[in-house]
Amino acid sequence: MLPKFDILTPEQIKSVHDQTMRILEEIGIEFSYEPAIEVFKSFSQKVEGHRVYLKREFVEEMVNKAPSKFTLHARNPENNLICGGENIIFMPGYGAPFIHESDGTKRNATMEDYNNIVKLAGASKNLHMTGGNVVEPTDIDDRIRHLKMMYSHIVNSDKCFMGSASGYEKAKDSIEMAALLFGGKEVIKEKPALICLINSVTPLKYDDRMLGALMAYAEAGQAMVIASLVMSGSTGPAALAGALAVQNAEVLAGITLAQCIHPGTPVIYGSTSAITDMATGSLSIGNPECALFTSASAQMARFYGVPSRGGGGLTDAKIADGQAGYESMMTLMAASTTGINFVLHTAGILQYFMAMSLEKFMIDDEIAGMVLRYLQGIDFDEEKFAFDVLKQVGPGGHFLTQKHTKKNHKIEFRRTDLSDRQSYDGWSKEGLDANKRANKRWQDVLANYVPPELDPQVNQLVEDFIEMKSKELLK
Amino acid sequence: MLPKFDILTPEQIKSVHDQTMRILEEIGIEFSYEPAIEVFKSFSQKVEGHRVYLKREFVEEMVNKAPSKFTLHARNPENNLICGGENIIFMPGYGAPFIHESDGTKRNATMEDYNNIVKLAGASKNLHMTGGNVVEPTDIDDRIRHLKMMYSHIVNSDKCFMGSASGYEKAKDSIEMAALLFGGKEVIKEKPALICLINSVTPLKYDDRMLGALMAYAEAGQAMVIASLVMSGSTGPAALAGALAVQNAEVLAGITLAQCIHPGTPVIYGSTSAITDMATGSLSIGNPECALFTSASAQMARFYGVPSRGGGGLTDAKIADGQAGYESMMTLMAASTTGINFVLHTAGILQYFMAMSLEKFMIDDEIAGMVLRYLQGIDFDEEKFAFDVLKQVGPGGHFLTQKHTKKNHKIEFRRTDLSDRQSYDGWSKEGLDANKRANKRWQDVLANYVPPELDPQVNQLVEDFIEMKSKELLK
Repeated sequence: MLPKFDILTPEQIKSVHDQTMRILEEIGIEFSYEPAIEVFKSFSQKVEGHRVYLKREFVEEMVNKAPSKFTLHARNPENNLICGGENIIFMPGYGAPFIHESDGTKRNATMEDYNNIVKLAGASKNLHMTGGNVVEPTDIDDRIRHLKMMYSHIVNSDKCFMGSASGYEKAKDSIEMAALLFGGKEVIKEKPALICLINSVTPLKYDDRMLGALMAYAEAGQAMVIASLVMSGSTGPAALAGALAVQNAEVLAGITLAQCIHPGTPVIYGSTSAITDMATGSLSIGNPECALFTSASAQMARFYGVPSRGGGGLTDAKIADGQAGYESMMTLMAASTTGINFVLHTAGILQYFMAMSLEKFMIDDEIAGMVLRYLQGIDFDEEKFAFDVLKQVGPGGHFLTQKHTKKNHKIEFRRTDLSDRQSYDGWSKEGLDANKRANKRWQDVLANYVPPELDPQVNQLVEDFIEMKSKELLK
Repeated sequence: MLPKFDILTPEQIKSVHDQTMRILEEIGIEFSYEPAIEVFKSFSQKVEGHRVYLKREFVEEMVNKAPSKFTLHARNPENNLICGGENIIFMPGYGAPFIHESDGTKRNATMEDYNNIVKLAGASKNLHMTGGNVVEPTDIDDRIRHLKMMYSHIVNSDKCFMGSASGYEKAKDSIEMAALLFGGKEVIKEKPALICLINSVTPLKYDDRMLGALMAYAEAGQAMVIASLVMSGSTGPAALAGALAVQNAEVLAGITLAQCIHPGTPVIYGSTSAITDMATGSLSIGNPECALFTSASAQMARFYGVPSRGGGGLTDAKIADGQAGYESMMTLMAASTTGINFVLHTAGILQYFMAMSLEKFMIDDEIAGMVLRYLQGIDFDEEKFAFDVLKQVGPGGHFLTQKHTKKNHKIEFRRTDLSDRQSYDGWSKEGLDANKRANKRWQDVLANYVPPELDPQVNQLVEDFIEMKSKELLK
């Protein structure tokens, strides 16, 4: 494995940390949820209305309680994942309400899309999880959507997945379902099986929905990403350093709350900070500034001794074109080479998180595979130098028929799934660009995908729970 | 500026170096050019026919004579370039015989394409040189092509450019023309104004054409890239470590020859090593293995104390699509973050060096701009934290109307040239993908480009030389 690259000096990390502590002490964070306020009061922090002022030593002490790495459990233990350390975890995009078709047409996402994306993630050899909220299935009643979404992950794959973060109650439902799948709440409290995404409201706020979920997950000993998306220029200063300090203050405040509730709660330091396109006021994520936030965040998380989340196949493009390709590769390379551990939005995202595209998903899956190969680095075992083979071949010879070649090319060279390496004549027979090839490919993969078996009894338990809950929620 | 990332440990560098020395001593290099053989004989190296065996101490001593950095001079001194150290130099693709149109149609390249690409490079704020051999203009007689190509660089831009490496005579013509432009051979011997690309013939050979050029440039004190393209699996071992050692042996042999001829000759350690697509036997460059060769080469060059060349916007795609985007971003990011100094093929290349595309050129120009912004890193000046602004804005506020925002966004955020950041509705009015937008953009840039003025007397001298030479060569 390649070493993780540092982009910040120790002095720069310290300056971000110091600014952050000043923000938390002098400006404070707004928590719009009484139970959270009560927690901070019980730890003797200064509270004015919803504004909480956090003391430096208190924050440092609490953040210190978070584990530096933890295992997330899958129903197939072969798919268990270690979050933290040298590991990197890839998964689909999260939360987009729209689907963009291959030709750029836009429509609302549906449950069918949801299932398809979970299956594609299940089939992928580059994605380690099926993610969560892979789209917003707008054809499902909002009150029971979280149940249907989680069920899709449970039946369509045996990889790790995420649970709902839409308030305390829905979070509890996710935890109940995970408990049914894994054999009880005590089991998953010991062996976390769920992770959710908690987002701050930048600048310097958390809302009741997210805080409710945070508290439910912390109480149940489940994992969470605590993430901030500062839009530098609109919801944060128009300077990367300043926006980074705002992000850091929000994330540390969230981690502190989780550790107050349940010391040792597995948390991931999350960043999606990016910039504002000053011409339109909209978010822009497919750019070097966002890549710098990501790389800096990986290092801040290492400084605090917690795993990190950031980056992905991020783009502002509306279609799976060249822009989607180069922006996604930049943001995934930056995340991966600088040590991000948990990469939400690895595959499928278009238009600054607004849309998913199945063509983009297949393109990003290829990008993910390429990045994983780069991270593997070069094997310098003596055999790899093949001195005797070279001596035999000599100047002007070739290696095509050598035993060493036949053995090693399969180990050393990554096989492409989507990228075209043909001659011009070979390619021009069909003349398909990557978007059109990806369109064929996801249909092929779906047609051939067989979801891993699920114990019928467990399935029944989960289905019964969903039925019972649905009746209650739709009353 | 970000630090340059290392992907190899000191032990790994040493193992490559040791293997290389063994190759040079025990297997040797074939030089198919008598004057080069004579040079090695005069330095008491063992010669058998065309095979030269180079002693470790001799190679180490000679490589040590090469400068760690040097200045390449442009006719506009503001465009002078420092090769080496922390610097990175971007320029167009090199040597492709074909043009692929926006829709993927293939045709032979012409002198008009050549001029257009030089102008686009001249207009670019991301490309530092106009390059050399930007395409093979097949409508110009091969015997005088080198004169016309170099003249295009001289009149269409005032940035640095490359000269011919097609044998001793054509190299001399390039040097004559540069001398006319800069005021004499003595002037450019002091202040190198030309650089050429010398390629080995892998494995372990150099041909007469390249050796002739190498000797002409070295005699005239002009700079050269000495590069090896090992196709791992066919012209080198199917293992990256082994291929890297073959490359290293070839490059060091070339550098040694240049230093024998003229100690202190400015040389750049060049790598284009990549893999063989084992299904077709063809070269494949848009991949993580090639990115690893590039990153490792940057570090080998640092070990030898010479500037490095590698990477670029490298792709196997036949059209400016998503694949072209992600492959080019990977190979340019890998080169740039790990400290490559001289990036031939930054812009325009398709299909493993076989074709240039003007759409791809504009896409790569954007990629280059993004990478340069990433390399700048984050400014941690106290003002950038904007603590007082943040205190005033407070939780839930916004920064859009702040003075700090108006001042800083222009400094901190890179403006895009090609990437679309609109809303879906804004984009869908035209609905153009990056390829189609790039097609419009290069036509716009060309229509508005005004080449910098050239002293009419100097121009006359150069034109007279070309006329005289052309008559002689076409006899």
